[in-house]
Amino acid sequence: MSWREVADRIRNWGRWGEEDRLGTLNLITPESVVAAAGLVRTGRTFSLAIPFDASGPQGGRFRSNPERLMSAINGTMSGPKFTSDSDSPFRFSDDSVFMALQAATQWDAIAHVSYDGRLYNGIPADSIDVSGSAELGIHRVAQRGGIVARGVLIDSARHLGIPYLAPDTAVTPAMLDETLETQGVQLREGDVLLVRTGWWQRFIEQGPDRWMAEAPGLSWRCAEWLHDRGVAAVATDTAAVEVRKTEPDAVTMLLHMLTLRDMGMMLGELWRLDELAEECANDQVYEFLLVAAALPFTGAMGTPVAPVAIK
Amino acid sequence: MSWREVADRIRNWGRWGEEDRLGTLNLITPESVVAAAGLVRTGRTFSLAIPFDASGPQGGRFRSNPERLMSAINGTMSGPKFTSDSDSPFRFSDDSVFMALQAATQWDAIAHVSYDGRLYNGIPADSIDVSGSAELGIHRVAQRGGIVARGVLIDSARHLGIPYLAPDTAVTPAMLDETLETQGVQLREGDVLLVRTGWWQRFIEQGPDRWMAEAPGLSWRCAEWLHDRGVAAVATDTAAVEVRKTEPDAVTMLLHMLTLRDMGMMLGELWRLDELAEECANDQVYEFLLVAAALPFTGAMGTPVAPVAIK
Amino acid sequence: MSWREVADRIRNWGRWGEEDRLGTLNLITPESVVAAAGLVRTGRTFSLAIPFDASGPQGGRFRSNPERLMSAINGTMSGPKFTSDSDSPFRFSDDSVFMALQAATQWDAIAHVSYDGRLYNGIPADSIDVSGSAELGIHRVAQRGGIVARGVLIDSARHLGIPYLAPDTAVTPAMLDETLETQGVQLREGDVLLVRTGWWQRFIEQGPDRWMAEAPGLSWRCAEWLHDRGVAAVATDTAAVEVRKTEPDAVTMLLHMLTLRDMGMMLGELWRLDELAEECANDQVYEFLLVAAALPFTGAMGTPVAPVAIK
Amino acid sequence: MSWREVADRIRNWGRWGEEDRLGTLNLITPESVVAAAGLVRTGRTFSLAIPFDASGPQGGRFRSNPERLMSAINGTMSGPKFTSDSDSPFRFSDDSVFMALQAATQWDAIAHVSYDGRLYNGIPADSIDVSGSAELGIHRVAQRGGIVARGVLIDSARHLGIPYLAPDTAVTPAMLDETLETQGVQLREGDVLLVRTGWWQRFIEQGPDRWMAEAPGLSWRCAEWLHDRGVAAVATDTAAVEVRKTEPDAVTMLLHMLTLRDMGMMLGELWRLDELAEECANDQVYEFLLVAAALPFTGAMGTPVAPVAIK
Repeated sequence: MSWREVADRIRNWGRWGEEDRLGTLNLITPESVVAAAGLVRTGRTFSLAIPFDASGPQGGRFRSNPERLMSAINGTMSGPKFTSDSDSPFRFSDDSVFMALQAATQWDAIAHVSYDGRLYNGIPADSIDVSGSAELGIHRVAQRGGIVARGVLIDSARHLGIPYLAPDTAVTPAMLDETLETQGVQLREGDVLLVRTGWWQRFIEQGPDRWMAEAPGLSWRCAEWLHDRGVAAVATDTAAVEVRKTEPDAVTMLLHMLTLRDMGMMLGELWRLDELAEECANDQVYEFLLVAAALPFTGAMGTPVAPVAIK
Repeated sequence: MSWREVADRIRNWGRWGEEDRLGTLNLITPESVVAAAGLVRTGRTFSLAIPFDASGPQGGRFRSNPERLMSAINGTMSGPKFTSDSDSPFRFSDDSVFMALQAATQWDAIAHVSYDGRLYNGIPADSIDVSGSAELGIHRVAQRGGIVARGVLIDSARHLGIPYLAPDTAVTPAMLDETLETQGVQLREGDVLLVRTGWWQRFIEQGPDRWMAEAPGLSWRCAEWLHDRGVAAVATDTAAVEVRKTEPDAVTMLLHMLTLRDMGMMLGELWRLDELAEECANDQVYEFLLVAAALPFTGAMGTPVAPVAIK
Repeated sequence: MSWREVADRIRNWGRWGEEDRLGTLNLITPESVVAAAGLVRTGRTFSLAIPFDASGPQGGRFRSNPERLMSAINGTMSGPKFTSDSDSPFRFSDDSVFMALQAATQWDAIAHVSYDGRLYNGIPADSIDVSGSAELGIHRVAQRGGIVARGVLIDSARHLGIPYLAPDTAVTPAMLDETLETQGVQLREGDVLLVRTGWWQRFIEQGPDRWMAEAPGLSWRCAEWLHDRGVAAVATDTAAVEVRKTEPDAVTMLLHMLTLRDMGMMLGELWRLDELAEECANDQVYEFLLVAAALPFTGAMGTPVAPVAIK
Repeated sequence: MSWREVADRIRNWGRWGEEDRLGTLNLITPESVVAAAGLVRTGRTFSLAIPFDASGPQGGRFRSNPERLMSAINGTMSGPKFTSDSDSPFRFSDDSVFMALQAATQWDAIAHVSYDGRLYNGIPADSIDVSGSAELGIHRVAQRGGIVARGVLIDSARHLGIPYLAPDTAVTPAMLDETLETQGVQLREGDVLLVRTGWWQRFIEQGPDRWMAEAPGLSWRCAEWLHDRGVAAVATDTAAVEVRKTEPDAVTMLLHMLTLRDMGMMLGELWRLDELAEECANDQVYEFLLVAAALPFTGAMGTPVAPVAIK
């Protein structure tokens, strides 16, 4: 099937009504949340966020790494300069940040990607303006109460016995199925899927050189697989979820097009999965309660997030 | 007791070792996390974050409201200007933000406040420099796996049958006890306490005029009460947790001093509690699983957060 | 004449060719620059910029005052944190800023204002996109070598013997003529006109309250007057050049529409004219060399500027 | 002489009084400004600023290139989103910027560099705090009426008949003397000296690779030479004025230490000198009126600047 045929098959437009702005998050039900909470057995929690600072993998033309700057250091509230010249013993420190919303661990909002002039559910792409997307901005997700779901980890790197996937590796549906089977876990409708490539660990060890350009990730052929299993969202330890090199029968960023625009499925990027993966390998339990709440930036194309896995 | 006597009594320095950087978060145990997850019965989730945009209550001298600006609108990846001149159908939109880390819904890092030249656990205040606090920055909390705990809501405004507490109201320990009793819920060690004053609703209805200056909140006398009950953290729907007007026997921002610096207890500010409170009033269940994960801004004085209550 | 009739009369489209992007700056010639340099007699220089900091008159929804934050304080170049732990004696300090380009003393780029879907010289308004204006951004002016011209001050407040014009005062062509005559100075083609209302001094004395809303300034009827005299650009000590309250026979911001879009004439705003005015009153010389060079922000709608008057 | 002996010899502390905050700018007198204005003969003006955008040579850890973002595009003033839904024909566009103050064409403030715990004139280095330098911030220069002076260009690259100096070239006093003689121009007290290495042209042609690390520039031995000739300030088309590679008998950034801290002499960096140099070569006149006014960022370590040479 050509990608346009696949797109037609998996397109969720209208599936949850004309007014729907949440896409596959609709697959998460109160019942599935209760079930996910039931997975908490040891009370161990794992933060899946990378450090938010200037050492990050982004930067460059239009995505600044978080640049955090102090606005007060042990200052007082009395003076315009917040200096320590007050009689009161109270001292405070404050800071501000400039950053691309997609510079560190993040969710893509559904509005992030369009093609043929349309966003998810047929919303015109030109509804995005200088103020962002009223229709499909990340605030829509935040209003829903964040993302709380059963999380399932697919540890592709460990399954292959390597620290990280080779450059330009396209992870196929067959590879996902095989790893799930080896790990002894099954997907259920409404799950959030985390796929570990080991690529974040590679960034820590080897730095940014060719890290973006040669990143492995899901093949666009996974779109149907995700659709058929009712996955609610997918996240990886790379910057783009999908393999960066365009596949022969594809176009640039095709998985982004199929998931965000056709399925209405959010993508999680730059998630730190190594510690969680270590634990899963130890206890052989690859499912957990996942909470990854969106900051309600009004109209935004994405949001920084500190996902938490609770086992 | 004078405030300095209280400070001596509740000071947790050394309680969890000289190297401790987490303070009262130590009161949250894996067991208490498992128990908190057991509170999830309906699968309903509530986001406790206010809108992150320029309409917020901060602004002014040194705390900018979130200013989010678009860096690409339905652009392509090929051109320096990200214009729509590509043959590929892929189009994307991106954005960046400038904001004070404490401008919207947030956690104060323990490093946020000092007095007498010391931060929590005796760390010198001058260890904070232009790069922030290596010792007590918010990244310490993030490394621990976020904040996951039993949450308990004290709905002070509803208890009094009013939409919001009167200006300058100091919420006392007695008031907290009474409301808990009426609500039929008890605190346990390691809980995160949320106190609703109704003040956020007042902001929505009446805007910023005198909203900061006359904000109600906890009396500094609550510090002992929080300490004795083993509360792990406390958050409110105001900008400062504590009553803004300095109480007669106090100094400026005294509760900040006692909690952050002496107890090592984080404060949550500008939390949106109205929807959750409505639900709690309906089902008369004032306890829930609370997940409020810190973004790991390295060295930061605080962090934006999208807390989620799961019932 | 209705404003649309005036617009037709003063419209400079095509006057300097279809490719022109400079508008009335074309009226400044090398000869007029030489003549302007000849006005330098005492060697006294006056900076016409207001302080660039958080105390400014802007702020609010979409124009942040300059927020300057330190990124290094007496740091070294060796460490990631720029701390003072180096053996080399070299120490440096650095800072960054977030600001609206039009928050302090500034030039409006010609691209700043459009109506009926057109910018100056018929350029489509929708040529402005998320990357700004390639056609009429401030870089066009900067490429030309900045703005160097004869400057002429009209001190309207002093002429009336008052510290600042009354709220909502519309300065008319007749008032401008009268003041010029009293001051004994004549306009020449290519001049940059500075009109002092005293309003900046009022900001210093009385703060921001109603400062924007009631600002005096030029009546839109001055557009023809400026056109007929060949003025190259006009600047004032207010935030909008023109009187803020819409005049009875006008529309919102009409002088902006006529000058920027029809004439292609740049506006200077928030200029600090008091010191210069004092000097002019002393020596009764209201002409000088004016240098107000645009920072070449590529595609920008305006630029911060530190204008200098040299007498 | 060792560098510390040189430092002792050229140190200007106290030369213009204990309260002096302007250093060698004191060498510019009203008379020298009048004389400089007299150099204007053709009325041609040259902007010496590089493009202010994300393509600049800075970036990286703590000096972001200018990131300019649109806040309104053909919007109206009525709505919170500035959309085009108004009956009034007025439409406006606006933008904001985040940038390091020293990311593009700029002046170093005297406060930028210290050693041995002291800034210029003996001011303690620790007087710089999170609010910047009240004593030696760039606002001091701005208050003085900007920088207006005779400018003299030394075109080192052209003198050697090469497009740009070889990597790591240290320009010596002898080379400066020789070039001045060839160019037929003499320095006078109070001049601002511009030295062209051709390195900016190299950036345009070859990009950032090794551009910083191998930059040529003045040898620290030029400090005495500049001192003895009464130069008021010096600027180059590189990022650091001085040769980047530390010379054998020197320490890191020694010329910065000697000029800014000992002499109180400002440095201009990333100036675009090629067009001006072309003109000087054509008419063989290497002197001109230079206006390079500082934006009065309160307390700042430097300022963006659009220098203008007027011939």
